[in-house]
Amino acid sequence: MIILVTGAAGFIGSTLVDRLLALDHRVIGVDNFSTGLRPFVQPALAHPQYTLVEGDLLQPGLLAPWLAGVDMVYHLAANADIRGGLAAPRRDLEQNVLATFNVLDSMRESGARRIAFASSAAALGEPSVFPTPEDCAVPVQTSLYGASKMACEGLIAAHCEGWGFEGHAFRFVSVLGPRYPHGHVFDFVRQLLADPAHLNVLGDGSPRKSYLHVDDCVAGLLHICLQARPAQTARHRFQALHLGHPSFCQVRDSVGWICDELGLEPELHFGSGDRGWVGDNPFVFLDVSRAISTGWQPRHGIEASVRATARWLADNAWIFEERA
Amino acid sequence: MIILVTGAAGFIGSTLVDRLLALDHRVIGVDNFSTGLRPFVQPALAHPQYTLVEGDLLQPGLLAPWLAGVDMVYHLAANADIRGGLAAPRRDLEQNVLATFNVLDSMRESGARRIAFASSAAALGEPSVFPTPEDCAVPVQTSLYGASKMACEGLIAAHCEGWGFEGHAFRFVSVLGPRYPHGHVFDFVRQLLADPAHLNVLGDGSPRKSYLHVDDCVAGLLHICLQARPAQTARHRFQALHLGHPSFCQVRDSVGWICDELGLEPELHFGSGDRGWVGDNPFVFLDVSRAISTGWQPRHGIEASVRATARWLADNAWIFEERA
Repeated sequence: MIILVTGAAGFIGSTLVDRLLALDHRVIGVDNFSTGLRPFVQPALAHPQYTLVEGDLLQPGLLAPWLAGVDMVYHLAANADIRGGLAAPRRDLEQNVLATFNVLDSMRESGARRIAFASSAAALGEPSVFPTPEDCAVPVQTSLYGASKMACEGLIAAHCEGWGFEGHAFRFVSVLGPRYPHGHVFDFVRQLLADPAHLNVLGDGSPRKSYLHVDDCVAGLLHICLQARPAQTARHRFQALHLGHPSFCQVRDSVGWICDELGLEPELHFGSGDRGWVGDNPFVFLDVSRAISTGWQPRHGIEASVRATARWLADNAWIFEERA
Repeated sequence: MIILVTGAAGFIGSTLVDRLLALDHRVIGVDNFSTGLRPFVQPALAHPQYTLVEGDLLQPGLLAPWLAGVDMVYHLAANADIRGGLAAPRRDLEQNVLATFNVLDSMRESGARRIAFASSAAALGEPSVFPTPEDCAVPVQTSLYGASKMACEGLIAAHCEGWGFEGHAFRFVSVLGPRYPHGHVFDFVRQLLADPAHLNVLGDGSPRKSYLHVDDCVAGLLHICLQARPAQTARHRFQALHLGHPSFCQVRDSVGWICDELGLEPELHFGSGDRGWVGDNPFVFLDVSRAISTGWQPRHGIEASVRATARWLADNAWIFEERA
């Protein structure tokens, strides 16, 4: 198949590209390198079936020349910095909503019809049911990032209804593993490498979060869209699916695993409150039974994922320079 | 109070403006007259407490000079042509999502913090529970219009969480009454005035729809935001509220009332299927008990609203020229 991946130099995107190439697909990767990293695309660039398009999805028409014959679009490009919405309110609108509209616009005109989208548990605000199913109550958004992701889901679903698209929106929990480039495990390891004796934790350490290893995430994206292709309900060609681990841990647990993995016993300084920042969600735990019913399941436990991430970051400290 | 109304030359907006002025508020109306009509603003322009700002919300900063001291923003400006999304896919994104972001952006910078937003039953796609409550399941969007309205709700809610806004999103059923400028009652009357002997109905006439008289709609907007101001839940400063009539009728019922009101007995030509067009929802019936619990309630029945609308259109046939 010919598969186009946006955000191809990102954490999940580059891992997906490598896996697609290993499965012998032809892959067109698109990235503007605003947060994507050159080292992540090096393995793919050595592959004869890979094409890298450098450009910004906010340029209308960027994708048009590349969509002929494309069987499937994985649209992963996005601003992924949830906290940053408070300082840069227009960013989620532009890089998530407008960029996604442009992808759909180009697909509509080119005839490409299948899209998988990286949504997020954050699109559900703070749900009241745990584990949270796909058809939970209409959320009250608590971040511009979450609002933008749900807006994108809506744009995709409307394209399924209006123009016969087939869409999957995958709401991810936090994804971990090699190439993990931001988030609290990243921040903790960065702090510990700079000062092994102290670790500052935003919030009181009580938040409960679920995590998924990037290899399990990518396996889900491939299995559900390319292999299982579960029967769509009669009514809709759009489906939201939760991808996560069927368990969760507390932030203080992950702190302990990270310190242990790095062989450190720092003095821990906790903040107060159960939120790291305005818009943080103190409990993320998705019901992933719909995804599991397709035959997919995560192979990595949460503790193993946290430890593998800390180890990879410690072994690849160059990434902290890139993100300085 | 000083109240800013966007879409002030529109059907609901101009009715709201007139009512606010009658209640002795100072009102700043904003409209770009893309679909707003000059005759609708004439009564307000004669009032000393009214200021009309002609401009497009897509111009960043349009509102900035006008927001100082504003106590409340009613943001009603929007593309309201649901069907048109298929022919002009970017319109809902621009006139609804981007325009709403610009309103919020200007409010954030000016310090204005209270906003009421005209959302829509269409933001719920095709719900499976009737009457449909505010906290129904996360919708699968079926139109770009509905997707854009839910996207706007999300942007507003995120501003409530991030910047202390107080937001109400009113999901309207179809609103009827004097100044009604588009929609199927409009189309039916237009056809009948042109040819009293024949009436073509999109679809088979079976769709069930709920309607609200514009005076009841405006009374709800005023009562809930300015008088009742119901206690916000502890967690959120954002609230979605359904505004509609606690009943519904079939399209074939409204056809009958319109013909009777106009004294006509045309030959009726029904189409096929229970949807008038792609994205049409064959059953709209909202649970309005949350709004009613604030002390508001609709005073006009559905049949009376349909008849009053047909009568007003027949008496104001100039509007068909404006919309030709």
